[in-house]
Amino acid sequence: MSSLDDLTARLRQFVAERDWQQFHDPKNLAMLLASEAGELVAEYRFVPGAVSDAVSREPAARARIADELADVTIAVLLLADRIDLDLARAVEDKIAKNALRYPVEASRGRAERP
Amino acid sequence: MSSLDDLTARLRQFVAERDWQQFHDPKNLAMLLASEAGELVAEYRFVPGAVSDAVSREPAARARIADELADVTIAVLLLADRIDLDLARAVEDKIAKNALRYPVEASRGRAERP
Amino acid sequence: MSSLDDLTARLRQFVAERDWQQFHDPKNLAMLLASEAGELVAEYRFVPGAVSDAVSREPAARARIADELADVTIAVLLLADRIDLDLARAVEDKIAKNALRYPVEASRGRAERP
Amino acid sequence: MSSLDDLTARLRQFVAERDWQQFHDPKNLAMLLASEAGELVAEYRFVPGAVSDAVSREPAARARIADELADVTIAVLLLADRIDLDLARAVEDKIAKNALRYPVEASRGRAERP
Repeated sequence: MSSLDDLTARLRQFVAERDWQQFHDPKNLAMLLASEAGELVAEYRFVPGAVSDAVSREPAARARIADELADVTIAVLLLADRIDLDLARAVEDKIAKNALRYPVEASRGRAERP
Repeated sequence: MSSLDDLTARLRQFVAERDWQQFHDPKNLAMLLASEAGELVAEYRFVPGAVSDAVSREPAARARIADELADVTIAVLLLADRIDLDLARAVEDKIAKNALRYPVEASRGRAERP
Repeated sequence: MSSLDDLTARLRQFVAERDWQQFHDPKNLAMLLASEAGELVAEYRFVPGAVSDAVSREPAARARIADELADVTIAVLLLADRIDLDLARAVEDKIAKNALRYPVEASRGRAERP
Repeated sequence: MSSLDDLTARLRQFVAERDWQQFHDPKNLAMLLASEAGELVAEYRFVPGAVSDAVSREPAARARIADELADVTIAVLLLADRIDLDLARAVEDKIAKNALRYPVEASRGRAERP
């Protein structure tokens, strides 16, 4: 499997070949991310939660969902690279923070913060 | 650096310890992703594009941005894991599609599709 | 009830008093809207659809939802005003378009486009 | 100009004719709103803020923006109607809250909360 670094390296080359760095300031990339997140949400907006696992396995829907999730991920990687952020480290840090914020016992089976 | 697989494994454990799988159907995770994307966008909404690189380096803003970008990434990883999607592969496939959709010569220096 | 024009007039005054027109270019207002939409989505992300009507009536949740929906509406009104768009007319036009796009017979009981 | 009540009445009829109330629980409508907000953001994502007023006046872009802003407004009106919320009142209440949160003197010319 490609690592985050591999994917980022490919994206960097893709952008450089098209001279798109000029459009990729952090503000614009945040908007790109939000618009791609909107497209992903559109896939599930009228799907009942209870069947959303099954819908995610139907070939046509799955192909679109994979596409949208990839688009979101690309926006995330482009933004992290642009601002020179170690994304894996940021995720690890956030998981550690969340572990304090949502203690196992108090959070078990509760969707929102205790 | 942690790989996508490592991060996903930690998230899976985090969720299992709290018995949160019941809340994490794909529909709900898509909503989680959209709400986290909204928080990231909030960081840049009144920042001019031309200074958004500089703002992304200011320690206080940077810490919040890293946090929000991590939250988005966590939602992406949780959703990809839930629907059993090889995210790195989906990103590679999308980059390949984009290379066809945005040919280098026709796309150079143009922000939107030619 | 206040009309769209009344609400817009109040918002215009609110913004002018604070000299905020400088921050309210259409791009920034689109981001404001997206961030407020994200906050609204957060209210429902772990609520099953079947109980989302009931949750919307619980006083504490209802107050937050009213607040978030008002924030989204404010962003919509600010953007429409900034670009000098007759919002009511745009909505009427869109309903007319949707009536052609989703013919009654073919669309009945189907969530997505036939 | 149509009032909020007029627009809501038309939407209610549009939905009833297609038997779509079943899909329009508050959770789904919040997702609809987020996906439409994402489409609006897409119109501005690579447009510099300083030219976003001018872009909003170009006929082709303007038609798309009017369309997307109408879609967001429709989602807002559908959700407010579904949860039986007086939207104009909610906006008035929020403007009053914001007036306290952002006092004129302390907020003048500052984009974020003082």
